[in-house]
Amino acid sequence: MIETVAILGGGAWGTALAIVAARAGRRVTLWARDPGTVAAIDQRHENPGYLPGVTLDPAISATGDIATASAADIVILAVPAQSIRAVAHLAAPHVAAGTPLVIAAKGLERGTRKRMSEVAAEAAPAAMPAVLSGPSFAADVARGLPTAVTIAAADEDHALALCRALGSPAFRPYAETDLIGVEIGGAVKNVLAIAAGIVSGRNLGASALAALTARGFAELRRLAEALGGKPETLMGLSGLGDLVLTCSGPQSRNFAYGQTIGAGGSRAGPHRLAEGIETAAVARDLARRAGVETPVVDAVAAILDGTLSIDAAIDGLMARPLKREAG
Amino acid sequence: MIETVAILGGGAWGTALAIVAARAGRRVTLWARDPGTVAAIDQRHENPGYLPGVTLDPAISATGDIATASAADIVILAVPAQSIRAVAHLAAPHVAAGTPLVIAAKGLERGTRKRMSEVAAEAAPAAMPAVLSGPSFAADVARGLPTAVTIAAADEDHALALCRALGSPAFRPYAETDLIGVEIGGAVKNVLAIAAGIVSGRNLGASALAALTARGFAELRRLAEALGGKPETLMGLSGLGDLVLTCSGPQSRNFAYGQTIGAGGSRAGPHRLAEGIETAAVARDLARRAGVETPVVDAVAAILDGTLSIDAAIDGLMARPLKREAG
Repeated sequence: MIETVAILGGGAWGTALAIVAARAGRRVTLWARDPGTVAAIDQRHENPGYLPGVTLDPAISATGDIATASAADIVILAVPAQSIRAVAHLAAPHVAAGTPLVIAAKGLERGTRKRMSEVAAEAAPAAMPAVLSGPSFAADVARGLPTAVTIAAADEDHALALCRALGSPAFRPYAETDLIGVEIGGAVKNVLAIAAGIVSGRNLGASALAALTARGFAELRRLAEALGGKPETLMGLSGLGDLVLTCSGPQSRNFAYGQTIGAGGSRAGPHRLAEGIETAAVARDLARRAGVETPVVDAVAAILDGTLSIDAAIDGLMARPLKREAG
Repeated sequence: MIETVAILGGGAWGTALAIVAARAGRRVTLWARDPGTVAAIDQRHENPGYLPGVTLDPAISATGDIATASAADIVILAVPAQSIRAVAHLAAPHVAAGTPLVIAAKGLERGTRKRMSEVAAEAAPAAMPAVLSGPSFAADVARGLPTAVTIAAADEDHALALCRALGSPAFRPYAETDLIGVEIGGAVKNVLAIAAGIVSGRNLGASALAALTARGFAELRRLAEALGGKPETLMGLSGLGDLVLTCSGPQSRNFAYGQTIGAGGSRAGPHRLAEGIETAAVARDLARRAGVETPVVDAVAAILDGTLSIDAAIDGLMARPLKREAG
């Protein structure tokens, strides 16, 4: 019987997932590094830094002690992708063998080029890795707006058990076993969202944005399938659905970052949590090694490297010859 | 050598396509029924009723005489889907044998359930049917914002010739031979856009809208493939790209119509040109005959029939069991 859920990470998404788990009837402990966040959640039932104005269920408690938090029936990792290894490593000694370790971050690890479930399996080998992905803005989820997501685990029964433990009328998880498709889809869509934001920041219009989204989806699908993902996964919530959401506007941090640089703004600054920034070069490397063409991903990576100007990237992407689209 | 282009239809899309053809170096004659539109285009180089503030190239002339207009190297039909048969029939005696008759409307004919290229082939059997589709708002195209579209004809060389005749740096057509995929994609996306608008009008949030778009795309793809369309076509500009654009906001008439009724507004009124209204029931019929499940299309058709309330439709679409997404 799944009764307790630990959320590791006190940002907007971790807090929203704590709300989700409490709505599903679970007792929730949220671990955050920041003592101010812990105190605010525990005493005032609010996370003013990330989800201001949202009152949290008293079934959600907070702690700064990862050992206490991690002794739960389900542990959800809701930290940035590049921190998953470190936090999984911290939690590992306190997680019971076989406990689902659910990754709620979308990205690829720099250096190793690994998916997050691979990283978690290395850092916490006794746990059972799983992934929660799909189109979901933390603010929508926190407000109780209807959201459908994917929960993936290698074993379908495990995935279904997680769906039952976390689902509620407004938050509907679908079970999936294709970890590769779910993770590559989630990681690459963040890179594509930066490209979409650039097109928006340059005021190229909605038609150009839609064309870029369709072309980007073709890349995402090609790369994920070359790495072993299934076509149906990419066309579902965690692939296409999440891409559509992330390319829909500046509520996405990756899109907002792209908009800022597309409009001529600085690449540094307050956009450090746009996961696509870290993932772009890794995705480009994976595509090269797999022999897959990913011109949009490559352009974003080169813009972020400083080796390609935004104008040159746009010219290159728009000036393809008048040939068959698939060519 | 393609020198002259006729546009039959003086609405926003017909006028934008006249601008496109003139930019590509063609001489353009636009036929409109309304004498005021003809006079404004011919004398003031403007179509104030549909594209106010856009100055038209003097290479674009207008006429109320369909015989004069139709004696062109390319004839583009830019009237609503349910008027394609009548206008093709009017033009037929004046179109030289083998002339490309390019359909720029997205829909299915009520009663016959036929695609527009089938309708045009019946009404003007000597012409060569072709289709122009893809993500393109008339206002974006008229302003010269970058747009990528699909031009489909049964013969690839014909499609490529049309791409060359109409393409320019900001308007990039891609050649395609899969008329079924292009036409079913374009027709069904308008129905899905009404559903997306309803979700927006009900304020269900961006996450729900993205989930609905992904689910709608699965329906569109299933139906088009069952009717003979190719998967790559549906995942390209004229399928996914156009769906993304149409579901992105109220600049789409179908989305705007859905928003109005989703917010409790009247189903009658100034939204008569939302093509999805006429197409919804036809698409539902096609899906039934093909044995394809299309819950979103069915819900839109039933809402428009008055046999299903919007709240019941939303409950039905959101309350699927916690099973595998593909199930």
